[in-house]
Amino acid sequence: MRIEILCTGDEILTGKTINTNYSYMAQRLGEAGLDVCWGTTVGDDRASLLSAFRQAAERADAVIVNGGLGPTVDDLSQEMAAEAVGVKLVLHEPWLARMEAFYARRNRPMPANNRKQAMLPEGAEFIDNPIGTACGFAVTIGGARFHFTPGVPREMRRMLDEQVMPRLLARAGLRGVTRLKRFHSFGIGESRADEMLAGIEEMALGGGVKLGFQAHYPQLETKLAIRGADEEDVQRKLAPVEAETRRRLGNFIVAEDQHSLESVVLDALRAAGSTLAVAETFTGGAIATRLLQVPGGEEIFVRGLVSRDPGQLAAAIGVAPADFSPEMAAAAAAGLRAQSGASHALAILVAMDAGADGVEAGGAISIGLSDGAGSVVREARLVGGREWVRLGATELGLDCLRRRLHGLPIDERLDFERR
Amino acid sequence: MRIEILCTGDEILTGKTINTNYSYMAQRLGEAGLDVCWGTTVGDDRASLLSAFRQAAERADAVIVNGGLGPTVDDLSQEMAAEAVGVKLVLHEPWLARMEAFYARRNRPMPANNRKQAMLPEGAEFIDNPIGTACGFAVTIGGARFHFTPGVPREMRRMLDEQVMPRLLARAGLRGVTRLKRFHSFGIGESRADEMLAGIEEMALGGGVKLGFQAHYPQLETKLAIRGADEEDVQRKLAPVEAETRRRLGNFIVAEDQHSLESVVLDALRAAGSTLAVAETFTGGAIATRLLQVPGGEEIFVRGLVSRDPGQLAAAIGVAPADFSPEMAAAAAAGLRAQSGASHALAILVAMDAGADGVEAGGAISIGLSDGAGSVVREARLVGGREWVRLGATELGLDCLRRRLHGLPIDERLDFERR
Repeated sequence: MRIEILCTGDEILTGKTINTNYSYMAQRLGEAGLDVCWGTTVGDDRASLLSAFRQAAERADAVIVNGGLGPTVDDLSQEMAAEAVGVKLVLHEPWLARMEAFYARRNRPMPANNRKQAMLPEGAEFIDNPIGTACGFAVTIGGARFHFTPGVPREMRRMLDEQVMPRLLARAGLRGVTRLKRFHSFGIGESRADEMLAGIEEMALGGGVKLGFQAHYPQLETKLAIRGADEEDVQRKLAPVEAETRRRLGNFIVAEDQHSLESVVLDALRAAGSTLAVAETFTGGAIATRLLQVPGGEEIFVRGLVSRDPGQLAAAIGVAPADFSPEMAAAAAAGLRAQSGASHALAILVAMDAGADGVEAGGAISIGLSDGAGSVVREARLVGGREWVRLGATELGLDCLRRRLHGLPIDERLDFERR
Repeated sequence: MRIEILCTGDEILTGKTINTNYSYMAQRLGEAGLDVCWGTTVGDDRASLLSAFRQAAERADAVIVNGGLGPTVDDLSQEMAAEAVGVKLVLHEPWLARMEAFYARRNRPMPANNRKQAMLPEGAEFIDNPIGTACGFAVTIGGARFHFTPGVPREMRRMLDEQVMPRLLARAGLRGVTRLKRFHSFGIGESRADEMLAGIEEMALGGGVKLGFQAHYPQLETKLAIRGADEEDVQRKLAPVEAETRRRLGNFIVAEDQHSLESVVLDALRAAGSTLAVAETFTGGAIATRLLQVPGGEEIFVRGLVSRDPGQLAAAIGVAPADFSPEMAAAAAAGLRAQSGASHALAILVAMDAGADGVEAGGAISIGLSDGAGSVVREARLVGGREWVRLGATELGLDCLRRRLHGLPIDERLDFERR
């Protein structure tokens, strides 16, 4: 089945807003086995919209239109859909009632122009929007079924999952249910992960599992997209592939599904009744930021210290000043643990190469970890420019802590590490 | 002139890569007075490319094609351009020589498949790429001029500015030069800025200045796009508008052009031979991160402290423990200044409302500033959810420091502040 995504709106067309709705939709569809063949972007312009609808109707079997369902005069999707179908707009009474109830609950009168959002092409199939005032709808133009969705990302995402995807899967003759299993790893590059997982798709009984990767340095996301007759079938197909993926990627998996490296670290600390203090240098507060962005992180992460100056760092912790080195990392972690009263302390010291920035610029990383069982140090060298080293050192610091908390070796070699 | 942007590549089509090239190109063109009317996305697929080229040729006067110029078999732009024009591919000897020299300088043999990158449609106009192995080219298909550019963002951006935009401007009959003047402000919403700058475009002698905004909370970017016969003409048109914009937006302008709030703060501190220490709570290290990401920031920002716990914060600084309050902000800033030896210290304390997150969640912000002249405090209340408060408090902390360093009042009311 040929699918087209048609994005509308001047903000998208002029580049003022980056079109993340497109990439989200295309990716979600692809994971469910629905391939997008064409993407079109047009502005809030009658002639362009009509022309785009007609061209998509010739090219595609199914179209998702995004945007143009708002209450203002430049929102033209319903009007131009009606014109392309050759029908008039009619009031969808139930949606008007829903909107009126929505405003009544907030003790506000419904603005008059919201009524426009309940005007749908005659004969259109209503598509529910449980969290906004822009309902969706579906119409047939030429040989293609068009699905209209709002531009607000939160509303689009929910409607795509709950309303549009089931319709597309049915139209494509893809029965059953789909699931996406995700593994987040650190230390393995995409091509090596691909080798490590060779043949894994064939372990699913009767097929239906598709392997994919998404690299966003320093992490790699490994995805298993599963299709089955029902939830039980999906689980049966997934189980052996999931277990084998976990076995092969091993200690490099930092988190799964909606979890993150930082949430895994915080969960492990919380489960043991532990707290954490962190001293950062070149990572400049990135570790503090990541841990404190997780809800509840502030109960575990009790103190962070940031300085690029060895003298300042030593003075703040109350240890002897020294250049950044493995010994200093151990001393800083132990000192900070004692000073803050945290049960665990982490120190990430980075000595960057002298000279200009560039892909050849590297840094020596010393990570010190101190807890009730003593202190350990991990050394590493990363090369690839300042930002590359900064991101890598942040990840390595958090990952050493994760490994320590889970009783795993902290010195397994990373693919992008130089020795 | 009708312009279309045609993006190619499976990574873009499937949503694996977010199409930031599109928004960059559309925005740059718009700023120069060239409006994009249509956007198309297709994959690395012969039939789709040919069809997209032919449709764009009917719709547009000028087309920018992005991607598909690489050395591998799935890079099809030259081949399909030749087919659409109806010519064969021929070797562009000078580009082959340039690539060979490029590899020779790096003492590496040129891979055989790079030769493909020097094969251009017969009769094509060569477009130089000074920083990569994918040259661009231009051909005419139907009534439209097609400009082919590489997908690597850095290369595309340089070629767009230096090679493609001058050709498009000439084709559109837009003579002369353009410039973009940018003001970054904090504390003014887009609609109020629009009111404050009413009639400003008309101050340019003979016209040619276009006003635009881009809101990315908590900052607002105000843009003046200027077109003139030559640099002198541009400067003459811009001067009165620029001065008046600066006068009307006044103290709310935090930086101009390529400068940022953080670089302005660091420059002011550096000019006075000063240094800075910062204590953060709810902002979780965001201020440290922003200051340390500026090259040379580590020479000024000597120490950062991050904790959400009043007791930990007080203990780390060596002051009496207290709940987050204006008094505690002043004490924390003074204590941190004395402890770190920095000439300036900033403390940003945030007391978030109890209860769940949501657009109604707010926080009381207390900012303490300590320097050789004493201590000052700025209080504010922001409402709009945790992330909204976090971003606003980060910006407000840095902005108070900027205002103090520049001798400006630190308590001018922000549009999104609640009292």
